[in-house]
Amino acid sequence: MHAAMNLILFDQPFEEIRLAADDPKTQHIRKVLRAETGSKVFLGFANGPRARAEVTALDADGSVELRVIATEPAPAPLPIQLLLGLPRPHTAKRILFEAASLGVQALHFCEAERGEPSYAQSRLWTSDEWQDRLRLGAEQSFGTHLPAVTIAPDLQTAISQLPIGLSRVALDNYEATAPLAAAIPADARSALLALGPERGWSPGERDTFRKNGWKLAHLGPRVLRVETACTAAVAAAASRLAGRAWAEQTLG
Amino acid sequence: MHAAMNLILFDQPFEEIRLAADDPKTQHIRKVLRAETGSKVFLGFANGPRARAEVTALDADGSVELRVIATEPAPAPLPIQLLLGLPRPHTAKRILFEAASLGVQALHFCEAERGEPSYAQSRLWTSDEWQDRLRLGAEQSFGTHLPAVTIAPDLQTAISQLPIGLSRVALDNYEATAPLAAAIPADARSALLALGPERGWSPGERDTFRKNGWKLAHLGPRVLRVETACTAAVAAAASRLAGRAWAEQTLG
Repeated sequence: MHAAMNLILFDQPFEEIRLAADDPKTQHIRKVLRAETGSKVFLGFANGPRARAEVTALDADGSVELRVIATEPAPAPLPIQLLLGLPRPHTAKRILFEAASLGVQALHFCEAERGEPSYAQSRLWTSDEWQDRLRLGAEQSFGTHLPAVTIAPDLQTAISQLPIGLSRVALDNYEATAPLAAAIPADARSALLALGPERGWSPGERDTFRKNGWKLAHLGPRVLRVETACTAAVAAAASRLAGRAWAEQTLG
Repeated sequence: MHAAMNLILFDQPFEEIRLAADDPKTQHIRKVLRAETGSKVFLGFANGPRARAEVTALDADGSVELRVIATEPAPAPLPIQLLLGLPRPHTAKRILFEAASLGVQALHFCEAERGEPSYAQSRLWTSDEWQDRLRLGAEQSFGTHLPAVTIAPDLQTAISQLPIGLSRVALDNYEATAPLAAAIPADARSALLALGPERGWSPGERDTFRKNGWKLAHLGPRVLRVETACTAAVAAAASRLAGRAWAEQTLG
């Protein structure tokens, strides 16, 4: 999809707004969208509806005025949450973007035994940068859902804080014998998928998963980059859940 | 997976080899792997087996000698081919890498109505760069399969040259009513998936797909980047095909 078509995501809903000249959204509307008075732009409100708005004024002081002319529901988040061994910041950036663009409901990070403590101290996490990545991902996909994000100091702590009732599958290249789709029960309505950091889960972490009732599954015999594995796992799980929902809907 | 663990892919099989000082593989073995005499490295032979090799000499002239000590079959390619509207070179680079790392069998590009003729003239395609991207993707995943690549001047020409017998699904955000998994028949053993360029397929191209017996399907209501959509489509299709193969194998 052409960049100029992307949605502009706002934190708070409004009917009319005046954006200051130095607001990045103003820059986007003026320079990327090259909007004129009367132009229509696509908006979204974080975790709320999407909207079409009209540019009602491009003022001499550089500010921009918008008025909402129609709203519609945004796509619902996928019934999928991810539990991720905290990866390198460069990888985490990509995952935040991709997960938000795919509509993942929530992202639970934990420091993993084969990760590095320095990962959690990166500017990605100590500044607002992680939120910017989520926002950009949602804007890319014309979604408004911003995944909830948590960070736990270790896997067991993360698991203790997770919601219950979701089908739980840990992706693992070493000991899993079933492919992901086969590990999600046929009647599952939601899934919690765990993926390790670049160097994978440790033997102790695999035990933690088993003790907590997780199934181990794989994505095939290849070693994928963590960000590729995240997208692949979400797509495979979403496809299985959606295929069933669609079959129910059309086949009765 | 740690970078140092990646496989080194060679075009031709060998039992012993001497790599010149200026070969990039020599640089990789000396500087990234920091190999010493007696070190073991992972190799692969393009579209052939994987191997473990021993570094038998690190010579004073900078060259490196390797001897294969064991071989094993590499993962078979996925029974999935992609037909892609030629995207921007930056996007194509990512797709070449990701498709090779996922083990896609073949990549068929065509110039799309909503693409740009300049895309095909980029250095990515006029130099060997596209092959380098495939090689890096295969190395990342410890695979050896390099997807076959073709480029056609338009969609109809591309379709006319495609292999027959595969389940054919074109991803489309506008007119498709079924999710991808539902468009792949339950007894399918292989799939040919089409994805448009950044701005999607044109109405005429959608007609071309229909006239040629393709089903249209979607990946949900979100607008994904082309490279994300490729990975998601391959994963969803592979999961459906593999889940069935696995179920047959274990359930009889």
